[in-house]
Amino acid sequence: MQLTLLGTGNVQGAPVYGCDCTACQRAMDEPKWQRNLCSAVLSVAGQQLLIDANHPALMQRFAAGTINAILLTHFHMDHVHALFSLRWGLAPTIPVYRPDDPQGCDDLYKHPGLLAFQPPNQLGAPFRVANLPELTITPVALNHSRPCQGYVFEYESNQQRDCLAYLTDTQGLPDATWQKLIQCAPRAVVIDCSYSPLVNNSNHNNLSQVIEFARRLPDSLWVLTHISHELDSFLLREAQLQLPPNIKVGLDDMVV
Amino acid sequence: MQLTLLGTGNVQGAPVYGCDCTACQRAMDEPKWQRNLCSAVLSVAGQQLLIDANHPALMQRFAAGTINAILLTHFHMDHVHALFSLRWGLAPTIPVYRPDDPQGCDDLYKHPGLLAFQPPNQLGAPFRVANLPELTITPVALNHSRPCQGYVFEYESNQQRDCLAYLTDTQGLPDATWQKLIQCAPRAVVIDCSYSPLVNNSNHNNLSQVIEFARRLPDSLWVLTHISHELDSFLLREAQLQLPPNIKVGLDDMVV
Repeated sequence: MQLTLLGTGNVQGAPVYGCDCTACQRAMDEPKWQRNLCSAVLSVAGQQLLIDANHPALMQRFAAGTINAILLTHFHMDHVHALFSLRWGLAPTIPVYRPDDPQGCDDLYKHPGLLAFQPPNQLGAPFRVANLPELTITPVALNHSRPCQGYVFEYESNQQRDCLAYLTDTQGLPDATWQKLIQCAPRAVVIDCSYSPLVNNSNHNNLSQVIEFARRLPDSLWVLTHISHELDSFLLREAQLQLPPNIKVGLDDMVV
Repeated sequence: MQLTLLGTGNVQGAPVYGCDCTACQRAMDEPKWQRNLCSAVLSVAGQQLLIDANHPALMQRFAAGTINAILLTHFHMDHVHALFSLRWGLAPTIPVYRPDDPQGCDDLYKHPGLLAFQPPNQLGAPFRVANLPELTITPVALNHSRPCQGYVFEYESNQQRDCLAYLTDTQGLPDATWQKLIQCAPRAVVIDCSYSPLVNNSNHNNLSQVIEFARRLPDSLWVLTHISHELDSFLLREAQLQLPPNIKVGLDDMVV
């Protein structure tokens, strides 16, 4: 089971349009520091499950028929905008799993095209997707300004047992989500870490919070995502700062 | 005054995701036949006015500070989706002219970022944008499934008089719009021509209608835009079809 980060940026991405801070300059000079909007793809047993849909070249990167399902964290535009093009493809229907958000985004529910919206996920209730009997997906609660959920992936076959968690967008982590993490002990947790310790935001974590999370679950690797240029600038400025060994700053195309 | 077509495709673009029709095959083989979603940029007296905002690389193509205004035809997602990224740039404010659509699209009005939405345009009432005293812009009525308007651009200086019209999305053309076209005799009209004569659609023109328009205003060049793969396939199949000399099939990056 492999999780590839397709984008690790916050709503502004990196470089931020018009910004010349040190982090944005670096992103212009060294493409590996560019950050697309936050999304990922889980590859398991020859299937590909997209988590959020916002990659700038989604339809070039994933040929028709190669996305087996889409799992949405929430319906903010920066997480779903690629669905507006994708829906009009002449390609096999794609099941879309989603939080309980009656509005969705703009007219997606009204004109779904090839998107097959499934009944809303129930928090904490595991489900399976077609052709992947070995994979259990549990939607878990997050704290955000609109209905939002993370996903815990548990894969079990004769050969292998593996668990990964993808938790963004969120500020803090609800107790029920902690309980699930403690129960399944993920190999890695991809976590919203939008800001440096200097910024407190009501919708997104900062680095101090994530360091605390990583202390609480020390055997998991904590991979930062949804990163703002403010956090990247902080990390550049505080280059001597030693992050705990189980924390890793995410980069686009990183494989977890 | 130059109008560059940034995109000439309908909501599906070309090639259509997952389609292997002759037109989509050609678009894959020969990039000049690829069609981005429909938008354009008017360049005049060193200023750039964007018409709709959906180019896949808008922020790479137009550096911060180089878009002097945005003119929206309407708030369907395929015409405005790039605004959702653009708004969070750290760049000078951009005035956005728009039809009278109280909803707008998703949360654009609520969180405009650097977009300065102007009071809704009044149909038929000319206006000017900053630093362009020689340019008169007249919003004109179109027929579409939500409030939608075209733009007539009249430029007049000591050296030059020029007029261009940009009319999409529409089915037919309202009388008041015809009166404006007849009065100002545009050098060129960029026109919604989504479909072949075989398709009648309540929101978009087909080729038969546009041929009739071009007969009615024979001294203007009529440039087709918002083209579907259905129309491209038809034109490929009917290669012997002679379009009237004042009709031209638009291509991305064509300059009018």
